Formats: sequence, C-alpha cells, structure tokens
Amino acid sequence: MPFSRIYNLYISPDRKYVRSLRNLLGFVPGNVRLYRMAFRHKSVAVSIKENGNAKNSNERLEFLGDAILGSVIATLLFKKYPFKGEGFLTEMRSKIVSRANLNILAKKMGLNELIEYDAKMFGYNRQSSLLGDAFEALIGAIYLDKGYSKTQSYILTQIINPLVDIHQLENTETNFKSRLIEWCQHHNKEIQFQKVKNQEDEGSRLFTVEALIDGEVKGIGQDYNKKNAEKIAAEKACEELKVL
Amino acid sequence: MPFSRIYNLYISPDRKYVRSLRNLLGFVPGNVRLYRMAFRHKSVAVSIKENGNAKNSNERLEFLGDAILGSVIATLLFKKYPFKGEGFLTEMRSKIVSRANLNILAKKMGLNELIEYDAKMFGYNRQSSLLGDAFEALIGAIYLDKGYSKTQSYILTQIINPLVDIHQLENTETNFKSRLIEWCQHHNKEIQFQKVKNQEDEGSRLFTVEALIDGEVKGIGQDYNKKNAEKIAAEKACEELKVL
Repeated sequence: MPFSRIYNLYISPDRKYVRSLRNLLGFVPGNVRLYRMAFRHKSVAVSIKENGNAKNSNERLEFLGDAILGSVIATLLFKKYPFKGEGFLTEMRSKIVSRANLNILAKKMGLNELIEYDAKMFGYNRQSSLLGDAFEALIGAIYLDKGYSKTQSYILTQIINPLVDIHQLENTETNFKSRLIEWCQHHNKEIQFQKVKNQEDEGSRLFTVEALIDGEVKGIGQDYNKKNAEKIAAEKACEELKVL
Repeated sequence: MPFSRIYNLYISPDRKYVRSLRNLLGFVPGNVRLYRMAFRHKSVAVSIKENGNAKNSNERLEFLGDAILGSVIATLLFKKYPFKGEGFLTEMRSKIVSRANLNILAKKMGLNELIEYDAKMFGYNRQSSLLGDAFEALIGAIYLDKGYSKTQSYILTQIINPLVDIHQLENTETNFKSRLIEWCQHHNKEIQFQKVKNQEDEGSRLFTVEALIDGEVKGIGQDYNKKNAEKIAAEKACEELKVL
C-alpha cells in the first residue's frame, strides 16, 4: 500500500471523509479536495480568486464530468448496438444522461448525504438538479484524480451495470407531452397547444406551435411536422416549469 | 516495426490509401476499414444488415467522435483556464467545436480530398456540413483504432496546437444576428425581428421574438431579455438557412 493511501485513510485529518468516500466509490481517493469540491453547491461556495469569476463550487467539475460521462456512454452504446443508427444512439444517450435519470442515480448512490448546500436558499422545488449536478461533478473529480480509463471502468462497473437497466430505457419513450399534461392536471392548470399564425407564413411548411399553460406561453416548437412541433413545445415547457 | 504495420504500408491492397492516411495523421493506421468508413457519406453508403437501420456511412462514427472530441476539449479548457467559471468554458467549447469551425479545420487538414459522397445528391449549399461531419467521424475512428489517450494527444498536438488560435476565439463573439443580417443583404432578402403577441401573455415576462426573412418565420427565440430572444431567433434562423 503506497504511503499516500495509508496517510489518506489513517493519518490525515480528513480520514473519516476519506473512508466514507471509499465506501461510496469502491476505491481510495487520492486528491480529497477534488471530491469535496464536487459536493459543494454554489450556494455555499466562495470565490477562489479576487478578479476571476470562478468559485470553489462544483460547477466547473460538473462541466468536465458531463463531457467525460457523455463520451463513456457514447462508447458503451456504440459497442453495445452495432446495428443501430446514430439517431437511436443519440436518443439512448439522452435518456441515460438526462437530468431526471442522473438525479435518480445520485439518489440510489446516496450522494445526498454528502452534498453541501445552503438550505435557506433552496425551496424543495429548486433542489431538483442538485443531485444530478453533484453526480456529474463527482465524475469530473474522479477523472482528474484517476484518469480516463479508471473513470470509464468506474462508470461502467459501479454505476451502469448495477443501477441502469438499459433494455428498459430502450422501451421508455420520453413523452414530454403526456408528462406536461399530467403535471397540469395535478396542478389544476389549463393546457393548450396552439398553432401560431403569422401574417405571411402561407408559403412556409414550417409549423410553429406554442404550449400555453393557463394562457401563458411556456414553450414554443417548430418543425415541418405538426406533432413534432408540439413535442418540442412540450419539452421546452417542461424545462421552463421544471417538470421532471 | 510490427508485421501489421509492414503489411498495411507495403503489402496490403490498401497500401496507397494507408500511406495517404499516414501523411494526414502522422501515424500508421491499424484498422483501415474504420477510416474508410469515417470518410464515407451516407449518400454513397449501403445498409450493413438487412433489418437494421445502420449503414456503413460515417454517421455512427460521427456520434462517437463528437463525444470524444467534446471531452478532450473540455479537459483542455478546464486546465487552461483554472479561474474561469463554467459559463465561459461552455461558450469556449461551443466556439471550438461549432460546425462552422470544424468545417474550417477539416478543410485546413485537407479532408475534402478523402471524402466519398454522391455529388448528384448534393448542391453546393447542402455540402456545408460534410467536412465537419467527416472530421468528427475521423476522431471516432482514431479512438476505436488507438484508444483514448492516443486520440487525445492527436487532437491536441496535430489539430488544436497548430490549427486553432484559442486566444483569438476568446475574443470572437459568435454574433448570429449580424451574420444573418449580412447574409440577407448579400442575398437581397428582407429581414425583420418581430415580437410575438399572444392573446393572454400579459402576465408573462417572457419575450418571444421571430426572425422573419422575406416575411417567413425562420427562427423563434424566447428569453426574459428581449435582446437575447432576438439572438436566439437569429441563431435558429442561421441554422435553418445554413448560414455559416
């Protein structure tokens, strides 16, 4: 066992934190500061330099982790589905790395125990992406600490294999329209999809549809197919209203 | 020199192609079929399985290469700008991997000599993304052939360092609005940005703006800030009209 591991696990003032990370990750972290940062939400962060705009929050790590996760999942799908076209691969990837799915994964992993944030600044609604953001930041921290290939095998063996049912995801349709309609029924709001008419759009084959919630435009979709334009408008409205 | 390299360079029926790839890439490719596929546009592809929807075109490799490129560039920017926030990093990455920039890079590298496509199916306008798509597919092929770490160093040493001026990109604003206006002047078209009024949107602070080209809606933008809504509408219209 190299000295840095012994130090981190048994001597360092951080040893308790290191051990809980080891239990979470299945390996002993090297640079503990990276992991602390991955779990620090911007509501409790401070600037790391007087004139810069970066904070010691998890946002930069989230940017990095999002990209690493995307490439690991792309590789997985490329190899798993040798006869599927790129449209299918793109859709499957969106399902796996959707904010909603990452929130669920993070919860299953127990990341909520580790995240630092200012509860006063967050209503329950607002916390919706805290978990998924921390999940991505954790991937970024592992990548900086251990390199690409260890991160890739961590994602596949510790997360995807035990926690994600890819074949089930294959068959779930991310149906934003029905999700939005359900949400409106639950919240007693009126929903309407409305084709927008423009003074001179007669020559255009492009459909423009607005999703109106209680008469307010919450999303707009455009497509050459009316159904698709509605789907896009619904997706935008789900984003806007934080319907997960 | 291992036998496979000697075979590929001097014996294989593909040896001429292998040598031109070596000149392009700076290394001897292993699995030549991957590179041929990376340069094969869907207009000249055939299905690889009777019932599957995948073709032997570069689209799947493009999906993979896009993800790998994204993670390599994210890492580069994360390390290059330790004091910048994630908004800056995201914007810089979009500039580097924008279709317009990838097209330019692909041209500088001379990829146009290698791409196979059916010229009859493509007017000059329609070719606009051929180069950038092939560029991404090439990254996917290198990754499958040589692994992550070789691909990363290929991207950094053979592409980014010699061909991309990151500091100049820092200062270029991707101004879709002025790009669109220029394009309209050049093509003698009338352009107008128009705020959309909805029957009941009085309570909403959300602005909805349409970009009308010769009276046709070509893009719609929504934002809480009117200028931003215009910018988004202009960006969508640029996409729609393939203005680069």
